[in-house]
Amino acid sequence: MKPDGGSLIGFGSGAPGGRTFLAFDPVRNAEFEPAFASATADDIALAAELAAAAAPVWVKLSGSARGQFLRAIATNLERKADDLVTRAKQETALPEARLRGELARTCGQLRLYGETAKRGDWLDARIETADPARKPLPKPDHRSMLRPLGPVVVFGSSNFPFAYSVAGGDTASAFAAGCPVIVKAHPAHPGTSELVGRLILHAVRDCGLPEGTFSLLLDARFEVGQALVKHPLVKAVGFTGSLQGGRALTDLAAARPEPIPVYAEMGSINPVFVLPGAIAERAAALAEGLHASATVGVGQFCTNPGLIVVQRSPAAEKWVKTLAEKLAGTPEGMMLTASIARNFRTGVETLSRQAGVRILTQRAATVSCGAVPVWFETDALDFLGNATLLEEIFGPSALVVWCRDAIEMLRVAGHLEGSLTATIHADAAEATGLGELTDVLAVKAGRVIFNGFPTGLEVSSAIVHGGPYPAASDGGRSTSVGTRALNRWARLVCYQNFTDSLLPPELQNGNPLGLRRLVNGEWTR
Amino acid sequence: MKPDGGSLIGFGSGAPGGRTFLAFDPVRNAEFEPAFASATADDIALAAELAAAAAPVWVKLSGSARGQFLRAIATNLERKADDLVTRAKQETALPEARLRGELARTCGQLRLYGETAKRGDWLDARIETADPARKPLPKPDHRSMLRPLGPVVVFGSSNFPFAYSVAGGDTASAFAAGCPVIVKAHPAHPGTSELVGRLILHAVRDCGLPEGTFSLLLDARFEVGQALVKHPLVKAVGFTGSLQGGRALTDLAAARPEPIPVYAEMGSINPVFVLPGAIAERAAALAEGLHASATVGVGQFCTNPGLIVVQRSPAAEKWVKTLAEKLAGTPEGMMLTASIARNFRTGVETLSRQAGVRILTQRAATVSCGAVPVWFETDALDFLGNATLLEEIFGPSALVVWCRDAIEMLRVAGHLEGSLTATIHADAAEATGLGELTDVLAVKAGRVIFNGFPTGLEVSSAIVHGGPYPAASDGGRSTSVGTRALNRWARLVCYQNFTDSLLPPELQNGNPLGLRRLVNGEWTR
Repeated sequence: MKPDGGSLIGFGSGAPGGRTFLAFDPVRNAEFEPAFASATADDIALAAELAAAAAPVWVKLSGSARGQFLRAIATNLERKADDLVTRAKQETALPEARLRGELARTCGQLRLYGETAKRGDWLDARIETADPARKPLPKPDHRSMLRPLGPVVVFGSSNFPFAYSVAGGDTASAFAAGCPVIVKAHPAHPGTSELVGRLILHAVRDCGLPEGTFSLLLDARFEVGQALVKHPLVKAVGFTGSLQGGRALTDLAAARPEPIPVYAEMGSINPVFVLPGAIAERAAALAEGLHASATVGVGQFCTNPGLIVVQRSPAAEKWVKTLAEKLAGTPEGMMLTASIARNFRTGVETLSRQAGVRILTQRAATVSCGAVPVWFETDALDFLGNATLLEEIFGPSALVVWCRDAIEMLRVAGHLEGSLTATIHADAAEATGLGELTDVLAVKAGRVIFNGFPTGLEVSSAIVHGGPYPAASDGGRSTSVGTRALNRWARLVCYQNFTDSLLPPELQNGNPLGLRRLVNGEWTR
Repeated sequence: MKPDGGSLIGFGSGAPGGRTFLAFDPVRNAEFEPAFASATADDIALAAELAAAAAPVWVKLSGSARGQFLRAIATNLERKADDLVTRAKQETALPEARLRGELARTCGQLRLYGETAKRGDWLDARIETADPARKPLPKPDHRSMLRPLGPVVVFGSSNFPFAYSVAGGDTASAFAAGCPVIVKAHPAHPGTSELVGRLILHAVRDCGLPEGTFSLLLDARFEVGQALVKHPLVKAVGFTGSLQGGRALTDLAAARPEPIPVYAEMGSINPVFVLPGAIAERAAALAEGLHASATVGVGQFCTNPGLIVVQRSPAAEKWVKTLAEKLAGTPEGMMLTASIARNFRTGVETLSRQAGVRILTQRAATVSCGAVPVWFETDALDFLGNATLLEEIFGPSALVVWCRDAIEMLRVAGHLEGSLTATIHADAAEATGLGELTDVLAVKAGRVIFNGFPTGLEVSSAIVHGGPYPAASDGGRSTSVGTRALNRWARLVCYQNFTDSLLPPELQNGNPLGLRRLVNGEWTR
């Protein structure tokens, strides 16, 4: 299975005439054939119209049919795993084992969201039955539930070519919620995107679903994505990427005649607070764990720890020195794209010029897309006085912030912006006194971690991957990972005094789908 | 109990120096003493700082303590009902019985949301326990729930001086969710606002809650509201009012360095589709019910039916004639403010000038703030071709749209913008064929009503008061009425591998609050 180089518009191909671009191999630092054609204005219009035409079919598609479709996609991806991994490896320079693991996670995610759709608890179905005799006014019959928003545009991210891309979490959760999906492929892996897109379309056909259920649009620049976000038939957007990119799309969507939600998961510095007891108890394991978390995937994880907050002491200084030595010995890694490598170097340069910031460990990369860990240190007072130090550097870089004491540590916590995660390392005796720090970090982050590391995300019913701005565009009200991710693509609809047969099956008297429902204030199934 | 004329900033009063304005009596068409002072920039800053300082206390306040506070507010309002109704009657010209009923509903709403907070189901508490032995990776312990967003600004609405104003649904649900509230009072009833605000503050003191739990800011213009929405310590906004006003605030909030959510409930034309069988079966009752729904509160309800879609036939023409006669005999009513009365006249004039629009019934009002029903009729083809006919006229006006047949009716439905409600009247035989119309209307409205009327809103666990834009700013993903209203003021937080004692009680192993929680995929209590 090899890419052809075109967009996939419903069951057809993109129109000719779009600007072409080539995929890029970071290892060889070279572009390679075949060329990919950007989607045209006609492609965008057709994809949106097909999705809008498919939307009413999708509203009525049962949760179990949605689940069957998501399982079919997973099966198709697994069958072609070799082709997908081979292509993705060439386009991303990510190691094969990582890509195979990520593909497995992607398939697990598709199945989990399919199971969630089938189970239907997420619909929040509620019934208040009528009481015509109630005084002073009769009580009407009200039945309500979540219903799909309609066509969703998903922007594939560069750093997870499977799990956050064409068949990733946004796409899977939007399908599970009942929405047709148009993916804007990330130009960092256009071939992988096309292959995954074709496997989704095979599942669309095999499951007898309408054309317009899925389209894939290519573009090396921003025009296609912007046009999609502005298209009146598009009802919501999912995005994973930079703060700059996410904010641009959020602003575009907010300025539409009919504003629509953009769920953008953006920048995050993922602070790690290391208390003295943790260092005293397990310095070596802590250094090893933090080193692994900070360098996995060449630091290109949304949850990469970028800020290490430590209280100054001889033991802490020794621990940071150990960590710095580990970092200095870390082999050079290959970044995903030339522009990510360039931005990493720029970010590092900017940070190194800030007052009070000292380099802890730094080596120059030897190849164009290469990167080695570059860590810095500074004192809390300098950190608190310079907002530039709050900015994420995407890649293997972190800033160690030295605090005088626990009070200054708390002040650093209070100074942070929104983040996907915040981590505390402490020993058992310290834990009892951590209430205030925990409370402050729970205001700053979507996930607070105790004695663990932020990378490595469990996809479950309880996970939260989101957070206050700028970690996410919606202030942390939703999660882009886990079964709650479906809720992003839905709106509430209430039916008043309806004939049973006119109601969606989810709300009918007989509960034909066996859903958990809130009936007159009590949850029943 | 009489108003003093000042803002309430925490436990203190507004600073002197703000521009003053007077309350207005629509019946006498005259302003009256005392003067009210607009909040100053210092007032705004202090209210925001006090609210931000109170927020961490409110995060930790148990659901039952929140419930106790909401009950205390309700009790205070009931004790001073005579004073409140007397003042509100003078400021709004609404009849006493309506005001007493609205106050009772407001108190019922406070208690219901308090009960919801106490019960805690809305928190969506979820636990996935650890499995250290899991392969290939150990499973972490994840526990997550909704947590309050922080300081919320609520804009009182003009048309419900109790139920959607200072102690109305937005305020009650924000308190229930754990957020301090700053209310920007509506200048149409500043005295009522101040009295209600003082009763809320009595409850704050009686319950031992921190200063900053509540502030009330006055302003006859837009500056104070705009400054509040832009204030960095404010985390969310609730608004009920015009599309123009709601959109202005939504745009301001989206353009902030840190964008925040605005839950604006705005314009809605609330279409009513009347099928031939309904007219044949119960013409008189239907005319009476629709007339009552369209004239209650002088048409100043968010759910006021503004579009009546009928298939042309001799019976339908006769029915519309009956309706028109009823409307022609409707006594003149008093609108809430001079500007609302002026906007009503302007809206009516604009509509009367549109091509193909004919006046069905019209009399001139005899006094400045007076209004009598003004209805229009047009043909479906004219309606479909002119977007001006989609605009809401706030007040007792509606447009009858004549359709040739059921297909044209469906076309009119598909042409509509978002609305809070959509209604179908049909007989039992017709009901079986209404699947398509129901489906289209469920895409257009937050609440679809069968053989009922849109006004008169049941506050329950299943109600939805919201809808696609422009009915609501968030595309219908939330409701501003009913127990789901709490969800608007909360964000998700996940705790990973935490010591039990550091967790909020809602997530602790022993479930000390007895919450319904999703534990390893099963709902338990």
